[in-house]
Amino acid sequence: MKVNHNYAQLEESYLFQTVNHKVAEYAKAHPERQIIRLGIGDVTQPLPAAITAAFIEGAKEQGKPDTFHGYGPEQGYDFLREKIARYYQNEIHAEVSAGDIFISDGAKSDVGNILDLFDKDNTVLIPDPVYPVYVDTNRMDGRRLVFLQANEENGFLPMPPEGQEADLIYLCSPNNPTGACYTYEQLTAWVQYAISQDAIILFDAAYESFVTENLPRSIFEIPGARGCAIEFCSLSKTAGFTGTRCGYTVVPQELCRDGMHLHAMWLRRQTTKFNGVSYPVQRAAAEVFTPEGMAGCRANLAIYQNNARIIAETLTKLGVWFVGGKNSPYLWLRCPGGLSSWAFFDELLEKTGIVGTPGSGFGACGEGYFRLTAFGSEANTKEAMKRLEEAYA
Amino acid sequence: MKVNHNYAQLEESYLFQTVNHKVAEYAKAHPERQIIRLGIGDVTQPLPAAITAAFIEGAKEQGKPDTFHGYGPEQGYDFLREKIARYYQNEIHAEVSAGDIFISDGAKSDVGNILDLFDKDNTVLIPDPVYPVYVDTNRMDGRRLVFLQANEENGFLPMPPEGQEADLIYLCSPNNPTGACYTYEQLTAWVQYAISQDAIILFDAAYESFVTENLPRSIFEIPGARGCAIEFCSLSKTAGFTGTRCGYTVVPQELCRDGMHLHAMWLRRQTTKFNGVSYPVQRAAAEVFTPEGMAGCRANLAIYQNNARIIAETLTKLGVWFVGGKNSPYLWLRCPGGLSSWAFFDELLEKTGIVGTPGSGFGACGEGYFRLTAFGSEANTKEAMKRLEEAYA
Repeated sequence: MKVNHNYAQLEESYLFQTVNHKVAEYAKAHPERQIIRLGIGDVTQPLPAAITAAFIEGAKEQGKPDTFHGYGPEQGYDFLREKIARYYQNEIHAEVSAGDIFISDGAKSDVGNILDLFDKDNTVLIPDPVYPVYVDTNRMDGRRLVFLQANEENGFLPMPPEGQEADLIYLCSPNNPTGACYTYEQLTAWVQYAISQDAIILFDAAYESFVTENLPRSIFEIPGARGCAIEFCSLSKTAGFTGTRCGYTVVPQELCRDGMHLHAMWLRRQTTKFNGVSYPVQRAAAEVFTPEGMAGCRANLAIYQNNARIIAETLTKLGVWFVGGKNSPYLWLRCPGGLSSWAFFDELLEKTGIVGTPGSGFGACGEGYFRLTAFGSEANTKEAMKRLEEAYA
Repeated sequence: MKVNHNYAQLEESYLFQTVNHKVAEYAKAHPERQIIRLGIGDVTQPLPAAITAAFIEGAKEQGKPDTFHGYGPEQGYDFLREKIARYYQNEIHAEVSAGDIFISDGAKSDVGNILDLFDKDNTVLIPDPVYPVYVDTNRMDGRRLVFLQANEENGFLPMPPEGQEADLIYLCSPNNPTGACYTYEQLTAWVQYAISQDAIILFDAAYESFVTENLPRSIFEIPGARGCAIEFCSLSKTAGFTGTRCGYTVVPQELCRDGMHLHAMWLRRQTTKFNGVSYPVQRAAAEVFTPEGMAGCRANLAIYQNNARIIAETLTKLGVWFVGGKNSPYLWLRCPGGLSSWAFFDELLEKTGIVGTPGSGFGACGEGYFRLTAFGSEANTKEAMKRLEEAYA
């Protein structure tokens, strides 16, 4: 009996454990101090009313003989896939059809499971700093990783590396953790590079709904992307589904590599190892894409976007270098005074009671940087920025 | 770029497609004939009232700021894990604690994904006939398969093969597709064999709630099993969750192989590639394990169990050899007149309008056998058996 020994090579991440430990120590030492958490990546606003109503309706249907739903299609119900396809066509202006779309229980599942389709003998390009799931899921399979350095020079938006071969390429835009967002020109360069390498771009669009400027929200807005990309999206941030669980993955039906159809392979993978998303959750998800549901989502997003604006204004006023915040709930700042990420974490907590996330937790290139998020309440965000100004003016 | 070429080796199953095609042809030729489907493996009764109410309550909570749930623990909420642990302790009398339990979106996901933990270089024992997921998920990874012949001689309950080495062993009891159920003595022999081989039993207990006789409902009722087994269970059949999606997997915390803790590996797998089950679904699932919820489930199960009894009585009266039906919703019968599985499918449909499932669709050893299921309504099941008696008296 042999286990998968790649698991022994995984680095344990103590990032959020260490954060929580330090916060608990601080709270004990300063019981009078109100701690403000601007480190979390989880939403705080409840589901919009129309979406909750659809969810409740779906749950009620499961209790009645005439409306009960048993096993559904593994790739999701057509009523939801068609709504998402129209969203791509009408809102994002990307060429995606219902047949390309697979409903998932969240982007994290599909980002991990998609690797079932690829051989271990592939070279994988991964940005640094990065969402750790891309790194860990490939380390579990023992693939070769090449890290793309993101830094101030490239605006934390690494471009195709000259002379570097690639088979799989991870891109996330708007980016987690930096909040940086690629332009059309930059993504076009990536698509051209992927085509030249016969590579596949695994594009994480989980934060697309935060884009307000004229920037791409989907890799499929870029000509040629249907021949070289798979996109993962989620309702976690768009509609507050972090605890309700629904996302979608787009695998263009014509996408081929190495003599195989990736769409047919993914369908086979999902029909074999997945039984579809809960019917009432899909009912709720479909409501996201109605005018009423989307208006509710936009109202929640506006709260987070306003928080991001408040943080960005303060950082600008203080002369702190940062990216993100405009088309993203994340702000990625250079630690003042040349401090390391953890030294600034400690100083910020001590001086202001604000909790953020040390950039070094997302990769070596994150050292010296720090992530703040816009998912708090407006009152807390304002109070935090008042304290920040007082401490760092 | 290399894809996973094991996918090219997968056999396409046309079983249910062919069934549906033949039924459509028959319906066209005999528009007056009422077709009765006794081939389906999906439940037909709605969720019990108490469970639906908890589901609705959970959905409502997602719409309010004070009760909204964002990201939950990947291994599931303690409120559900603790209820399942008590069910194991008090109802099944098996030694399982909340810490051993992982909440899943269904047994199929975890049965497939668990293979992430094991090397490709392992020998896998799989019964024939069998639930095709065990075969396909291992073929996707390229593992060596050894089939265990199930037949009338062993009552479709294969026992450990002498002189055969094994690393992974699939057992499903009560069995899908045969309905046969192992005894304590038989499972004890399997546990002793697994220990002697240093192998892991992957035990599928999805049909445990159909056991009414003094037969094991969990591998963990068998002494020593905590040192050699992982169990997959599902609320699909227990509580009608086929479209609501929730199950659970038990990985004993002390289970080790090849120098690694399988529980820690599975936790790492799930925290990396999964974000937990929808909160309202877990609320509904927790209600299954309350006295009121369980009474509702038992009332639905009684309908299916009564259907199974009606079918079993008819087969006995007609002198048709079969297994199952007593502790299972499935009945596995020898095709009358020595017919092949598909020849009997055609004859039965033509003579009676009854749709069943050809046994050959579940593996070579299923040839000459046929599966009937108890998930229809009582009226339909009775009508079907009346027709069967008339045609085969």
